[in-house]
Amino acid sequence: MTIFRHFYVKSHGVTEPEKINLKDLPGSSGRLDVVARCINAAFWLSGDIRRNVVFHTVLHGGEQPVYIRIEGERLRKVSPDERSISLFLKKALERMGSREETSPGIFASSRSFREVVEENKDKEFYLLEEEGESIEDMKFEGIPFFFLGDNRDLTDEEKNFLLERGARKVSLGSISYLSSHCIAVVNWWLDRKEGKHREKVI
Amino acid sequence: MTIFRHFYVKSHGVTEPEKINLKDLPGSSGRLDVVARCINAAFWLSGDIRRNVVFHTVLHGGEQPVYIRIEGERLRKVSPDERSISLFLKKALERMGSREETSPGIFASSRSFREVVEENKDKEFYLLEEEGESIEDMKFEGIPFFFLGDNRDLTDEEKNFLLERGARKVSLGSISYLSSHCIAVVNWWLDRKEGKHREKVI
Repeated sequence: MTIFRHFYVKSHGVTEPEKINLKDLPGSSGRLDVVARCINAAFWLSGDIRRNVVFHTVLHGGEQPVYIRIEGERLRKVSPDERSISLFLKKALERMGSREETSPGIFASSRSFREVVEENKDKEFYLLEEEGESIEDMKFEGIPFFFLGDNRDLTDEEKNFLLERGARKVSLGSISYLSSHCIAVVNWWLDRKEGKHREKVI
Repeated sequence: MTIFRHFYVKSHGVTEPEKINLKDLPGSSGRLDVVARCINAAFWLSGDIRRNVVFHTVLHGGEQPVYIRIEGERLRKVSPDERSISLFLKKALERMGSREETSPGIFASSRSFREVVEENKDKEFYLLEEEGESIEDMKFEGIPFFFLGDNRDLTDEEKNFLLERGARKVSLGSISYLSSHCIAVVNWWLDRKEGKHREKVI
């Protein structure tokens, strides 16, 4: 059994592609390097891509929010390094408008956080929070959808919007981890739930 | 209680700094991007550096192996993105010979894998292997020292060298994970052992 899983990482990344300087991602892009590392953590296995993951981000660093969705099932061509992933994010911003799927598996459009949440209300929402219920005690049902911040947290308003829609707070412990490391751990934990930790993958 | 922990990642990275092109790390450097992501996973927390980690790598992509050691306790100035970490690796290769500590917390010298292992024989060795004992069943004693490959595995000879020195095989499951994700999970698992998952960090 494969558990499908969704991740949303809020981003303060820029939405004007010409601002993104691949030589200085942290300084130029509103920390798209953070999002790139989260995308790496969400999808890559050794020599493979997780087909059971969908990654969502809304970039908030421009005039209008831009929604980027990456579907593991269709993702191709991207390498796991920050530069390659960022290049595809940049392309997504350049090409959006003319088409929604800007590269295989990468989709870009003008959509807000609230719209993305509403469109996914068939999933089970989990808000990563240090003071939430321990992931070790949590029973996952349905298709889990995890929400995280980038280097900055979600706003209280965004959190409340999720909580009002049934989101449960889930904790990886009292240490404040990088979002990309949280995603690596959640992926591993869900694999464990699938029983992939003690038997060979088919 | 803080558990000190060491990680070794074998690298096929180049040892001539002029070969490292920061615009194309995967293509130019013998996959130093993999090592950079492992270093990110080993040290970074949200807004902090893990002072209880020492990271070791031996670069095998040149004529002579080069040993780089990073001590969390002394590490400063480096940012968590691949480019910044790689820049410091490049500096380490440029400066080695004239001094051992090439930047705060980063040490470079001519040393082989075997020498590094012998110098650390006071630690408890763990070899990350899919068919090892599950990390969930493992009791950790002493100062754990975890050994991993980069995008390629350690050689049988290297593995045997470790096993002859008491290394135990430890598994994160039957899926083949990226080394950087393994490090993120091991760090998290050891934090859990420290009891950091249910109480606040002091």
